[in-house]
Amino acid sequence: MPTLVLIRHGQSAWNLENRFTGWWDVDLTEQGVGEAWAAGELMREKGIDFDLCFTSFQTRAIKTLNLALEAMGRLWLPVEKDWRLNERHYGGLTGLDKAETAARHGDEQVRLWRRSFDIPPPLPEEGSPWDLASDLRYKGIPIPQTESLKDTIARVLPYWESRIAPELRDGKRVVISAHGNSLRALVKHLSGISDDDITGLEIPTGQPIVYQLDDDLNATDRYYLSER
Amino acid sequence: MPTLVLIRHGQSAWNLENRFTGWWDVDLTEQGVGEAWAAGELMREKGIDFDLCFTSFQTRAIKTLNLALEAMGRLWLPVEKDWRLNERHYGGLTGLDKAETAARHGDEQVRLWRRSFDIPPPLPEEGSPWDLASDLRYKGIPIPQTESLKDTIARVLPYWESRIAPELRDGKRVVISAHGNSLRALVKHLSGISDDDITGLEIPTGQPIVYQLDDDLNATDRYYLSER
Repeated sequence: MPTLVLIRHGQSAWNLENRFTGWWDVDLTEQGVGEAWAAGELMREKGIDFDLCFTSFQTRAIKTLNLALEAMGRLWLPVEKDWRLNERHYGGLTGLDKAETAARHGDEQVRLWRRSFDIPPPLPEEGSPWDLASDLRYKGIPIPQTESLKDTIARVLPYWESRIAPELRDGKRVVISAHGNSLRALVKHLSGISDDDITGLEIPTGQPIVYQLDDDLNATDRYYLSER
Repeated sequence: MPTLVLIRHGQSAWNLENRFTGWWDVDLTEQGVGEAWAAGELMREKGIDFDLCFTSFQTRAIKTLNLALEAMGRLWLPVEKDWRLNERHYGGLTGLDKAETAARHGDEQVRLWRRSFDIPPPLPEEGSPWDLASDLRYKGIPIPQTESLKDTIARVLPYWESRIAPELRDGKRVVISAHGNSLRALVKHLSGISDDDITGLEIPTGQPIVYQLDDDLNATDRYYLSER
């Protein structure tokens, strides 16, 4: 039976500072490093193993994967990195303090941007310091300017279908180290969660989520590894 | 013009303890971690950049690459790992203290094993604690039991020709993080060094070696990045 494990990266500097992050390439905090290492140790203790790893183009997810693999003695596993596993792009909210943004735009507006299914945040302002146009990793890639969760899902799922699902169907054991919203996209798809409910589903940092899948990749079980 | 950088992993625990290491998967020391990070910072400062990375199946080379890439802000680059870039397999010498081995077998014999071109060390003893037969990463791979430098070259060069050289011919900028003897294999090939001379060529840990290559991948220049 194919096994899939999802891990949201450990705490990042902007998780801690309570700022909208999105595609900005923020590093893990010391706590985040510890969470990633602990995730690897937990998987090792529980006898979880992999054949293949996927992650985003973002440092916090790649480092989380590398640290967990090191703790498992599995740094040698193949790793595929792809921008389509990146966090949701927060557009003009990127870099802003969440409390300040709520004070300026109102709690209700911020709640809509954060937790609605299909309303994207505003576009970045001209000359924003958080512009990624000159970031080499995205050369030739259609960088979004802002994304709703629906938009994020629309680029995560084609990657899932084209690159990850075929490996699982082939019997490979897979781990995906990614972000709150790219993982929401996968959990929504695999567990058949509604548009309304997925926006409220919180995915904790550094907690391996195990999926048992049948041969058609329908979820037969899903649990936090720490709870078994 | 294609650019190629070679890096030998930073100091490992057994470099420090003066033991034969070969395929045994020893970690970096704290000094080795620092060397890897410094190599990345040096490359960043000197404006060196890459499109693609290659490394072995061994933790010390993979971590050296990951640390250097992190220092460069380039963790997102694609990385291909392959056993054919592994260190020379030291056979029955694996795990032994170099001084003790010299006391037992004589300096001249140890010099022959370490520095001859085509004399492999003895085969591992039955029940050796350094046996890799149960190591999952080598499942399905023709693990050598012992290797001379000539044997190492014989598995490094086909990998170079099939996977690395085509990327360089395609204009990709490449870094290879590997080991003393797998890098000797490449330096011998690229710089046309004789069988006798290559065994005495020391490759320092954590020092990026830059090759400028012409379109036929002949070396037009080779230097330590720290010296330019």
